[in-house]
Amino acid sequence: MKYEAINFKEKHALFSEVWSPRVIAEMNDYQFKLAKGEGEFVWHDHPDTDEVFVIIEGTLEIEFRDGKVTLNEGEMFVIPKGVEHKPYAKKLCKVLLIEPKGVVNTGDSGGELTAKNDIWV
Amino acid sequence: MKYEAINFKEKHALFSEVWSPRVIAEMNDYQFKLAKGEGEFVWHDHPDTDEVFVIIEGTLEIEFRDGKVTLNEGEMFVIPKGVEHKPYAKKLCKVLLIEPKGVVNTGDSGGELTAKNDIWV
Repeated sequence: MKYEAINFKEKHALFSEVWSPRVIAEMNDYQFKLAKGEGEFVWHDHPDTDEVFVIIEGTLEIEFRDGKVTLNEGEMFVIPKGVEHKPYAKKLCKVLLIEPKGVVNTGDSGGELTAKNDIWV
Repeated sequence: MKYEAINFKEKHALFSEVWSPRVIAEMNDYQFKLAKGEGEFVWHDHPDTDEVFVIIEGTLEIEFRDGKVTLNEGEMFVIPKGVEHKPYAKKLCKVLLIEPKGVVNTGDSGGELTAKNDIWV
């Protein structure tokens, strides 16, 4: 059988929209999604699940109601479920998201930045 | 509150044992583990879960009964549950594993390469 690696840079090159996650793999009922970010995202939370950010390229800042974290390439962070957060990227950054299948990017907040779900690249 | 990024290189520098995963984070009931590999691991499978490898540094080859995949830095692969596999690294490589809490590195195979579980770094 033919087994193929999933290459983050190759997959990231296949789309340009920011704040619009693309699924690249599934593990049990979880999905691995690539996303690009630039500028401000919206305040939101995911009431039912933790969410992981892994930084592939660039820098992502995540603001919380009581603090902030700066994530650089080669770093990860777990957003605990129910914790409000607002991602921000001064320059274009590329990230890997890991979360259960079905999670919407804007959580319960909705709005125009809500991306279609379960789009593969 | 103080929020801190988890840096893969910094965490990898804190241990030297090969084939001995160290937990760095939890997301719901899943764990993120760093591991180093060099030489041959054993044939094994995980009958109840998929398992994800993300390559942080170096090259990891994973042999299957009917094929092989070569994973380089910036690449990932999902081992489907129940599929026998044997990791091999010609030179020292550094990887990130993602799998449910409680998964043992040698699966059902056991043996001297079985690492203690749930060791954090």
